[in-house]
Amino acid sequence: MADPQFFKKAQNFSLRELADLTGSELSEGADATQKLHDVAALDVAGANDLSFLDNVKYKDAFLTTKAGACIVHPSVAGFAPHGVSLLLNSNPYKAYALAAQAFYPDVKPESVISDSAHIDPTVSVGPGVVIGPGVVIGPGAEIGEGSWIEANSVIGENVRIGAYVRIGSNATVSHCHIGDHTRLYPGVRVGQDGFGFAIDPKGHVKVPQLGRVIIEDHVEIGANTCIDRGAGPDTVIGRGTWIDNLVQIGHNVKIGRGCVIVSQVGISGSSVIEDFVAIGGQAGLAGHLRVGAGARIAAQAGIMRDIPAGEEHMGSPSLPIKQYMKQVALLKRLIKKDK
Amino acid sequence: MADPQFFKKAQNFSLRELADLTGSELSEGADATQKLHDVAALDVAGANDLSFLDNVKYKDAFLTTKAGACIVHPSVAGFAPHGVSLLLNSNPYKAYALAAQAFYPDVKPESVISDSAHIDPTVSVGPGVVIGPGVVIGPGAEIGEGSWIEANSVIGENVRIGAYVRIGSNATVSHCHIGDHTRLYPGVRVGQDGFGFAIDPKGHVKVPQLGRVIIEDHVEIGANTCIDRGAGPDTVIGRGTWIDNLVQIGHNVKIGRGCVIVSQVGISGSSVIEDFVAIGGQAGLAGHLRVGAGARIAAQAGIMRDIPAGEEHMGSPSLPIKQYMKQVALLKRLIKKDK
Amino acid sequence: MADPQFFKKAQNFSLRELADLTGSELSEGADATQKLHDVAALDVAGANDLSFLDNVKYKDAFLTTKAGACIVHPSVAGFAPHGVSLLLNSNPYKAYALAAQAFYPDVKPESVISDSAHIDPTVSVGPGVVIGPGVVIGPGAEIGEGSWIEANSVIGENVRIGAYVRIGSNATVSHCHIGDHTRLYPGVRVGQDGFGFAIDPKGHVKVPQLGRVIIEDHVEIGANTCIDRGAGPDTVIGRGTWIDNLVQIGHNVKIGRGCVIVSQVGISGSSVIEDFVAIGGQAGLAGHLRVGAGARIAAQAGIMRDIPAGEEHMGSPSLPIKQYMKQVALLKRLIKKDK
Repeated sequence: MADPQFFKKAQNFSLRELADLTGSELSEGADATQKLHDVAALDVAGANDLSFLDNVKYKDAFLTTKAGACIVHPSVAGFAPHGVSLLLNSNPYKAYALAAQAFYPDVKPESVISDSAHIDPTVSVGPGVVIGPGVVIGPGAEIGEGSWIEANSVIGENVRIGAYVRIGSNATVSHCHIGDHTRLYPGVRVGQDGFGFAIDPKGHVKVPQLGRVIIEDHVEIGANTCIDRGAGPDTVIGRGTWIDNLVQIGHNVKIGRGCVIVSQVGISGSSVIEDFVAIGGQAGLAGHLRVGAGARIAAQAGIMRDIPAGEEHMGSPSLPIKQYMKQVALLKRLIKKDK
Repeated sequence: MADPQFFKKAQNFSLRELADLTGSELSEGADATQKLHDVAALDVAGANDLSFLDNVKYKDAFLTTKAGACIVHPSVAGFAPHGVSLLLNSNPYKAYALAAQAFYPDVKPESVISDSAHIDPTVSVGPGVVIGPGVVIGPGAEIGEGSWIEANSVIGENVRIGAYVRIGSNATVSHCHIGDHTRLYPGVRVGQDGFGFAIDPKGHVKVPQLGRVIIEDHVEIGANTCIDRGAGPDTVIGRGTWIDNLVQIGHNVKIGRGCVIVSQVGISGSSVIEDFVAIGGQAGLAGHLRVGAGARIAAQAGIMRDIPAGEEHMGSPSLPIKQYMKQVALLKRLIKKDK
Repeated sequence: MADPQFFKKAQNFSLRELADLTGSELSEGADATQKLHDVAALDVAGANDLSFLDNVKYKDAFLTTKAGACIVHPSVAGFAPHGVSLLLNSNPYKAYALAAQAFYPDVKPESVISDSAHIDPTVSVGPGVVIGPGVVIGPGAEIGEGSWIEANSVIGENVRIGAYVRIGSNATVSHCHIGDHTRLYPGVRVGQDGFGFAIDPKGHVKVPQLGRVIIEDHVEIGANTCIDRGAGPDTVIGRGTWIDNLVQIGHNVKIGRGCVIVSQVGISGSSVIEDFVAIGGQAGLAGHLRVGAGARIAAQAGIMRDIPAGEEHMGSPSLPIKQYMKQVALLKRLIKKDK
């Protein structure tokens, strides 16, 4: 189904191969030798396609799907339409992700350094690197093995980029160390001065921003997102954290491992986000806060205080989710009574 | 009034010509041969300028304007100061737009392909195209007749761009088909991977993003706005839709025709926005929703459920406007009573 | 403490020199000849470092700091740990800023015009200018003395840039006059068309945007921020105003002197922000409003009406802070009572 102009399919797989690749069980009676040629959504999949059901919103599409096979949670196996083989998995979305990666593995151009890139002679470039046209790399920078810097990006002096990193086009990176397997999308801005100045009616006085940005391994940073460097301490993005588009991360912010930060979130300076925190779109966090491990912050929430580990907060100013739901329900009742 | 360093005026027009151009009626006694030399705002317009009144906030400026002529709704014609000719139109702002376009038609540089652009030899370039310095265009891309790609933009492999499209500078476009007469402003990001992954404490697992972005004709997309490509289905922006700056549009989103989406709005993945929907600045929409045709969503609203066609919603979480107004009024009263 | 790969320290200073540089008093018994080698945060500073206390959140770090000297407000001098020299200042953060600037003065590369920049022959370039690789500058533009245009930025026709301006990489500037000592960060978009069109079901009609952007002296504009040019009047950013990342400023907006506008704020078209206004992150302002001098708008506030000078507003829709606080407290009480 994927447009072959943009995506190259690697090969076909048998149901058995897909079960092994994704850690799934075949449903009773499924033919392990059945060949699947592609992945597709439930409503458009055909007899040679593998699909998946993960969100109950799409159960009607599941009931009528014409997919050859489908990855589902064991609890819904009984609802499958006749003729659809099932791969049973407790995390169908993850299993689908692994299957889709097998059909459509990542592609990278062959190693090449564009003639029109402007690379300082002191830059260290690892083997297998791709550097696109118009890229500018300052003195002393290091680009690790297999990394890919796309067209017209600008990498500052002494920046260190690890192995198998991909920097999207038109991005700007300075004052920064980046780990391995990390990806920055187009238009990302990393390492510029934070918003640091002393207010003064005669003219605000700039505070030199003397820290760096440290981005660990396996991080993803969405398009046009901005991460300011530290004012003294570093700004840190922990291993395996995923950040969406148009997010703002202020100076000195520390983000732990495995966090998920949705589009247009703003995190003010010096706040600490511990491991595995999830923050919904457009939420805002004041500065100098701590959000405990595993906390969940709803979209558009306004966080003005520390959030204990594992708590879920909604609203602006935010409340623990139970209180917030009570408030919403109470207001509804009051309006109903009122005329 | 417009600075001639930045804007070239085409010619002068008679009142009759302007009435014809804009579909307006001359007011009684107006001199059809009166020459107007320029457009200007009510408070700065002089005897040779055409102005307009559209927003009642500016009625004082209308009462004292020195404009030679003014486009107004027929209902306010009686308030015109002495000596101001009137063009009567039921949509004065549209009429002004047409007049201003006549005085200041769009200009495009002469067709030229910059020597310093990096254009793969397999790219198809239509007649009359302008390609600025530092532009990078990947293999197999098509640039239609009369299109203009501004400096340092990056167009990916096999992207199709229609006729009379303008792509602003430092923009990035991949995995995308763009219709005719569409315009992307500087720094737009179109076609990057959506925010798709299966959450896993051992490391989130990326879901390959196998869809495209389809942008139809006469679309405008504001500066630094991000539109992710589909995960499987395409992300679609319908004909004649206007999108402002710094907007986020997630994967698989379908936006209909003629929508208006103001700055900093965020639309989460897989939501459907039907035709002629208006969304105010900084509003956020959860994923997998449907907003019916002609619905209106206020600035900063938080949309967590489907919105029926034609409804107006405000607040976060949003309410139909009547209920929302009641809630605001009720809270005011309660606070007043309270001490 | 600052990483010498990214920051060059100028020299050491005696306590007396630092007192003079920052306008501070030495505390009783302090040794004016004590040498300080660097600045550092309270918790990491050592015997040769100068630190500061400005935010009461960090008082514990102050009580145990090992800094050689510390800038503090006179009122907390009594709490200093033994052996820490004090510089007493009524604005410790400003004093720290001045000290840090002395240790780490701004650096600019030597004047050079990159061979790979595309500069129209009619451009006027002042003495001491730095123009990076891939920069594109259109006909008639003026770049003042000592200004620095970083890599891959695009400066439009007839743009005027004053002296000692710095334009970050991958930025786009058109239809604009910029004063002296102003700084635009990477990815800033200035001067594109505002979001101006007449709504029409047959196709919205574009209103030509015939104004400019005027940015005065000593302005800072954060990464990926967008400032649209005026529709007729100019968009104006006043002297000494600081704007953070990812901010949206609509057409015709006038911002006064010394304002502080935090990340992700959106200011709709034609609004007027008077001098010394502070706007918290993610706040949104409707169009055609006036915010009086010295007003303060909280993060995430939604401003739908004029704000009188000096007032503080919170919430969406916003209320004066006292009323807002009452509303928050009232809701808390109602929820408590409710079951």
